[in-house]
Amino acid sequence: MEKVKPRTLSGFMELLPARQVQFDRMVDSLRETYSLYGFTALDTPVIEASEILLAKGSGETDKQMYRFTKGDADLALRFDLTVPLAKYVAMHAGELTFPFRRYQIGKVYRGERAQRGRFREFYQADIDVIGDGALDISNEAEIPGIIYRSFTRLGLKRFCIRVNNRKVLSGFFEILGLSEKAGDIMRAVDRLDKVGPDTVRDILTQDCAVSSSDAGHILDFISPAAATEEKLAAYRGKSGLFDTGAEELTTVLRYMSAFGVPHEAYRADLTIARGLDYYTGTVYETTMLDHPEIGSICSGGRYDDLAGYYTDKKLPGVGISIGLTRLFYVLGEQGYLNDSLLTAPADALVIPMTDDIGPAVSLTTLMRDAGIRTQLYGENKKFKAKIAYASKLGIPYAVFLGEDEIAAGKAALKDLNTGTQELFDYEELISRIKSGVLSLSQGPVIIDK
Amino acid sequence: MEKVKPRTLSGFMELLPARQVQFDRMVDSLRETYSLYGFTALDTPVIEASEILLAKGSGETDKQMYRFTKGDADLALRFDLTVPLAKYVAMHAGELTFPFRRYQIGKVYRGERAQRGRFREFYQADIDVIGDGALDISNEAEIPGIIYRSFTRLGLKRFCIRVNNRKVLSGFFEILGLSEKAGDIMRAVDRLDKVGPDTVRDILTQDCAVSSSDAGHILDFISPAAATEEKLAAYRGKSGLFDTGAEELTTVLRYMSAFGVPHEAYRADLTIARGLDYYTGTVYETTMLDHPEIGSICSGGRYDDLAGYYTDKKLPGVGISIGLTRLFYVLGEQGYLNDSLLTAPADALVIPMTDDIGPAVSLTTLMRDAGIRTQLYGENKKFKAKIAYASKLGIPYAVFLGEDEIAAGKAALKDLNTGTQELFDYEELISRIKSGVLSLSQGPVIIDK
Repeated sequence: MEKVKPRTLSGFMELLPARQVQFDRMVDSLRETYSLYGFTALDTPVIEASEILLAKGSGETDKQMYRFTKGDADLALRFDLTVPLAKYVAMHAGELTFPFRRYQIGKVYRGERAQRGRFREFYQADIDVIGDGALDISNEAEIPGIIYRSFTRLGLKRFCIRVNNRKVLSGFFEILGLSEKAGDIMRAVDRLDKVGPDTVRDILTQDCAVSSSDAGHILDFISPAAATEEKLAAYRGKSGLFDTGAEELTTVLRYMSAFGVPHEAYRADLTIARGLDYYTGTVYETTMLDHPEIGSICSGGRYDDLAGYYTDKKLPGVGISIGLTRLFYVLGEQGYLNDSLLTAPADALVIPMTDDIGPAVSLTTLMRDAGIRTQLYGENKKFKAKIAYASKLGIPYAVFLGEDEIAAGKAALKDLNTGTQELFDYEELISRIKSGVLSLSQGPVIIDK
Repeated sequence: MEKVKPRTLSGFMELLPARQVQFDRMVDSLRETYSLYGFTALDTPVIEASEILLAKGSGETDKQMYRFTKGDADLALRFDLTVPLAKYVAMHAGELTFPFRRYQIGKVYRGERAQRGRFREFYQADIDVIGDGALDISNEAEIPGIIYRSFTRLGLKRFCIRVNNRKVLSGFFEILGLSEKAGDIMRAVDRLDKVGPDTVRDILTQDCAVSSSDAGHILDFISPAAATEEKLAAYRGKSGLFDTGAEELTTVLRYMSAFGVPHEAYRADLTIARGLDYYTGTVYETTMLDHPEIGSICSGGRYDDLAGYYTDKKLPGVGISIGLTRLFYVLGEQGYLNDSLLTAPADALVIPMTDDIGPAVSLTTLMRDAGIRTQLYGENKKFKAKIAYASKLGIPYAVFLGEDEIAAGKAALKDLNTGTQELFDYEELISRIKSGVLSLSQGPVIIDK
C-alpha cells in the first residue's frame, strides 16, 4: 500500500500530550476567571456565510480569510470571535438579557504568511459586555480587574495593564485643531516606545506637517514623565469630547483598586489608541515587563456600535481578547511554563501480578470511583517494561497486586518519584495517592520569578 | 448603511446561553470520565492537507468533505477525529508512549444534506487506546466500563451496551462456507430489529442465495432467545478464527462486572457488525431503551491497523465515539435535560444603592475572591429593572448595598427564589450564597426517570 507522508500544516499548533495538558490548564484557568465575573460561555460555528463575515469590511482580514464554496453556499472560516458575536447578538437580541456578558474561547483562522510564532489557526479568549442602547462606565472600569485576575491566576507577575481613553486623544487633537491629521499623528505617536521622542518629533513636523509648537504639545501630552491628572487638567474645559474622556478615564482609574488591581500593575498611558475606527472610549493594552517585544498580550476597549452592519439596534460594548495560542507559544519559548505540575495522563498505574486480572480490575474500578485517574496495565511485557511505561509518562504511582496481597486484602504502592514501596489496605492506598497527587497539582501554570 | 441579515448556517448548532451551559456541562462530565480512565486530551487542527484526510479513501465521507484551496494549498476540514489521530500517532510515534490513550472532544465537519437533527458541524467525543504492534484484550474489556460510567455520570439510566466480536461473526460464516457472502449476510442480519426474522430469512434465501438450512443456522445463531455461551459452544473447534473470537468475547464478558458494569446494562449481541472493513475484534453499540429509533449513541470497536495508509508501523487499537451534538439535540427534544440546574451566568448580582459605587465594587471583588460568580450592576435603571435583570437570567441572589449597610459593615441579601431578604455581614453573606449555590448545582445533566 502506497503511504501518504503524515504531516501537520505549517502555522497550525499541534502539541504533544504533556504540552497539551499545560495548554488546557491555561484555558481552564481563564474559563474560571471569566466565569467569576459573570460571563456566560458561547460557542458559535467555525464556518459562517461569507457575507456575514465580510459585512463589516476590513481589507486585511478579508484577504486572510479562508473562503470556499460547498454546493451553492459561499462560506468562510471565522477570523475572530467579535464578528460572530455581533451576528449572534443581532440575531438573538430579543432572547438575550442586556447587558449581555459572554466569553468565548475558540479557534479562529487567518491565512497569513506562516512564520515562526505566527499561527493560521489560533485560539482567542474573548470577553465582551454588550449593552442595549447604553452601557455604564463601570463596565469599562471593571475590565482591568479581569485582566489582572486572569494573568495573576495563571501565575504571571511582571506585567502592566495600560489604560487610555480614545475620547481624550480625539478631544486633544480637536483642541489643537488637528482632528483631520489625528490618524497620522496617532500612528507616529504609537512608535514612541520604539524610536524615541526625537524621531517622533521629526515624523510629526516633517511627515504629518504639524507645527513645531504643536509637536511639542503632543510630545508633552504623551510623555510618561508628567502625571496624567495634571495633563488632563491642563486641557479641561476646551472640548466637550476631551472633558467626557477625561471624566471617564478618571472614573476608570478611581475604581482600579476596589476592583482589585494594585497600583504597580497598571498605568494610564495617553499614547494607546488601538486602531482608528472601532474603539470609542476606554482602551487597554497589557505588556509583559520583561518581554515588551511580544507586544500586547491582552487588548481591547469600548466600542459604540457592535453590530451596525447587521442591525439598526445600537449595541455599545466593551471587550478584551487574549491571543492564547501565541501567548502559550511565547511562554513556552521563554521558559515560563511550570513543568513541575503533573502532566501525566493518570495518577496511578495498576499492574496485575496474577493471571486472573479480576481483582486488579476491581481495585482499578474502586480507585476510579474514588476520583483517582487510573490506568490498568494489561500488556504482556516484562515487569521492567511496565514500570518504564509509568516512568516515561510521569505517572507518579504504581500499584502491584499479587496473590499474597489479594489474600491479605492489600496492595503494594510504589511512589515512582521517591522509589519507596509499601503495602496498604485499599482505603489507605487511595488516600495516600489522593494526597500525593494533590500536592503534585499545586501551583500556577506559569512560573514568573 | 445597508444591513446584512444576520443568520447562522443551517446544520450548524448555535445555542442560547442557558442551553450552552447545559451542553458544556455534558462536555465537562465526559472530560472528567475519560480522564478517570487515564486518557490524555489531544487537540488536533480542524484543517488538514486534503491528501492527509483522503489517504484512507472512503467514498461517502470524501464526498461530504469541506475541501478548498488557499494559495497553493489543497486543504480540507476534518470529518472525524480518527483520521487526525492516525496522522498524529504516525507522525509522533517516536515521541509517544504505548499503549497511547487519548481522548479528543472536538468539532468535525460533514457537508451532508441538512435536515432536522442532522448537523454539518458537530462535536465528537472520542477515546482510543493505541498499541505498538500489539494490544491486550483487557483494553477491549475495559471499554464497556467507560461507556457505562460516561452515561451514568451524565444521569442516563435506561440504556444498554451491546457487545459482539467480529471474529465470531467471520468465523461463523467461515464454518458455514459463506465467507464470500459475509458482507451481504451481515447487512441482512443488521435489519433483524427492524423487519423481524421472517423477512431476514427471505432476504437471506432470495437476495443472498443462502440455502434454507444455512438461513436457519444464521437465524438461530443471532437469535436473542438462546444464551450466548451455548451458541458459542455449539460452533467451537471448527474454525480458529471463531475460537479466538469466542475466547475474546468470553473474556470481555467475564470482566464486565469487575469493570463496574451491572448485568442489566449490557448484553452480548451477535448481530452487531459495525461496518465491514475497519473493525476486527470486539465491537460496541449503545442504545437508549426508550428511544431505539435514535440508533446507537456510543459505538466503536477494536481495529488492527489504525494508520496503515501513513506508516508501516502496525498500530492496533480500540476506541469509541459519541456523537455529542446529535445526542444533545435528541436529549433536548425528548425532554431529558435537567432544567433545574443553575444556568445563570452568575451566582449573585451586586446592586449599588449609592452614587459612589466604590464600596459595592470592593464587596464584589471580595465575593469573587471567595469564588462566587458575581456581577456588579452599574446601569442607570429603575430598581425594578435591576431586579428583573437578575430574575430573567435566573441569578439566584441579589445583594444591595446602601449607606446604612455600608456604615454597619453589612449588606442585604435577597434570595430571588424565595423572595426573602436579610442583612448579613460580608463573611456570612458569602457563606450563605456559597451554600445556596452548591445546592442549586447538585444533580445530573440528564434526568432519566
